[in-house]
Amino acid sequence: MRDLVGAPESMDFGSGKVVLVAGGAGFLGSALCPRLLDAGNTVLCVDNLLTGDLANVASLFGHARFRFIRHDIIAPLRLSGRVDEIYNMACPASPPRYQADPIHTFRTCVEGSLNLLNLATEKGARILLSSTSEVYGDPEVPVQSEDYRGNVSTVGPRACYDEGKRAAETLFWEFGEHRGTQTRIARIFNTYGPRMHPDDGRVVSNFIVQALRGEALTIYGDGSQTRSFCYVDDMVEGLVRLMESDEKMPVNLGNPGEFTMLELAEKVLARIADARPLCYRPLPKDDPRQRCPDISRAKRLLGWEPTVPLERGLDLTIPWFSGRVAAEQRQEALVS
Amino acid sequence: MRDLVGAPESMDFGSGKVVLVAGGAGFLGSALCPRLLDAGNTVLCVDNLLTGDLANVASLFGHARFRFIRHDIIAPLRLSGRVDEIYNMACPASPPRYQADPIHTFRTCVEGSLNLLNLATEKGARILLSSTSEVYGDPEVPVQSEDYRGNVSTVGPRACYDEGKRAAETLFWEFGEHRGTQTRIARIFNTYGPRMHPDDGRVVSNFIVQALRGEALTIYGDGSQTRSFCYVDDMVEGLVRLMESDEKMPVNLGNPGEFTMLELAEKVLARIADARPLCYRPLPKDDPRQRCPDISRAKRLLGWEPTVPLERGLDLTIPWFSGRVAAEQRQEALVS
Repeated sequence: MRDLVGAPESMDFGSGKVVLVAGGAGFLGSALCPRLLDAGNTVLCVDNLLTGDLANVASLFGHARFRFIRHDIIAPLRLSGRVDEIYNMACPASPPRYQADPIHTFRTCVEGSLNLLNLATEKGARILLSSTSEVYGDPEVPVQSEDYRGNVSTVGPRACYDEGKRAAETLFWEFGEHRGTQTRIARIFNTYGPRMHPDDGRVVSNFIVQALRGEALTIYGDGSQTRSFCYVDDMVEGLVRLMESDEKMPVNLGNPGEFTMLELAEKVLARIADARPLCYRPLPKDDPRQRCPDISRAKRLLGWEPTVPLERGLDLTIPWFSGRVAAEQRQEALVS
Repeated sequence: MRDLVGAPESMDFGSGKVVLVAGGAGFLGSALCPRLLDAGNTVLCVDNLLTGDLANVASLFGHARFRFIRHDIIAPLRLSGRVDEIYNMACPASPPRYQADPIHTFRTCVEGSLNLLNLATEKGARILLSSTSEVYGDPEVPVQSEDYRGNVSTVGPRACYDEGKRAAETLFWEFGEHRGTQTRIARIFNTYGPRMHPDDGRVVSNFIVQALRGEALTIYGDGSQTRSFCYVDDMVEGLVRLMESDEKMPVNLGNPGEFTMLELAEKVLARIADARPLCYRPLPKDDPRQRCPDISRAKRLLGWEPTVPLERGLDLTIPWFSGRVAAEQRQEALVS
């Protein structure tokens, strides 16, 4: 176990809290960090940089209340000093990435959560789990509320993530129930925005990147499967409100507006020139047919609902990917 | 991490295998150990004695090929010498016991499995998980086949065990898939027989012990919920056959004969004098309404099915409890 210095005396706490964001260099974590800094908090960004990227938080390195700690949460984390809140956003979240080392993915979910729960309990900190709509698996109900128990296989290519997150929820619940830890469980549905990894295999980034590269957009199956897409700023707001609430039971966070893959493809193509025909591929194993959050608990408990429509979210997201793809193409031009 | 001596040179291996039974002093483990010894194997019985009882294996201590190691599998286990097979039977399995320290229960399922899987992988040993029908939760289908994905809540009093076992299955599957480990997953349905703990809270032991003590038999709910009951010798035979097979996917083991709680109560009362009226209590939270294994895979893959009818199993079980209750009453007489 490494001993790590948390927030040293020299850091300017201001009047804010000390907030640890595990997975802080990832897509969601790196959107959460500036939001927490802007609110006057000190942010300890913890990441193993396995799928997170320092570039995502590069702009925060000059901030007096920001600190980066490279650490893999499957090992216990010892921090000196106070910690008031912990967001556990750590885990590869897209199938190609979480399937690259499924045992490590599972251990990140389970042992990572256990280590952070122990830290939270020791520090008297609140702790929030970024769980996922994947705990519902391939749902038999068109809209998933928190009491739906899911349709998840314990074996197969998605199990390391789906069952890992389910197990993490159980650990959070048990610590809340039996150790008095202030736990929060967010079930995060599809979220998109700047800083998603271009090769993440998520449908929004896939479509945007394919369109920007002048490639055909890949539709798996017949494209009639639906997803809901939440813009990242909405999600961050929901996470912060959940942390501030007293709710220990799981809360769905996501955008209930449903779109088929074909509808999403059309919206992306309408925003990016050089459209190419769609390309159809077989549906991957265990790919859920439908996924749509019932967010009535979040509305009632947190006064939260998404405000960014898909069209505007795409308009905010495409320029970031455009920059990435342009840089990629400059690189290729230099090499060739 | 403690370094433990496995099967020392002085042990007589004979022509058999070296078999580690984690949870070997528990109800099922202690029935498995003599079966494995009788087949000519060396048995390393590992138990933390949290719910296991040395008395269950006391008769084996004189055996040249039996060795007891007190160890909690949530810590890694280092063994010198060869290990050919590992049965992971370790975990409190009845609600009052697994709920006594739910975080430890969960860690036993998950970290215990991880440690044993690492050991099996290192030793090139086959490893079998005693999973459970609890992975099906409160089933929406009257008979559960292995492809039924279950109806399990990630939060609540049963989650530490149910989700712990689901997560353990995932770990087993991943090691089989990605580390080349020879894994087996048995989904064990209700099993009964001698050496069940009298205060275990299982319905068979509850009824027998209540009847022997001259107390009213407790029926939860209206007693119409059904269970299947497998006699322990049948279960042990199924476990050994599964270990010997090549099947890595989960296999149900249990007795498909269904009985309501009221039917079971009648059979117990018919065998024990001093019958008292039934006593009705509310159904505990998350108590499954029905549970019955589809064992067609076990029949096909292992050529296995239970052979001991409930009536005979009760006749074989009651004398053991009778001895326990008589000893208890002698003890009370001495104290008062």
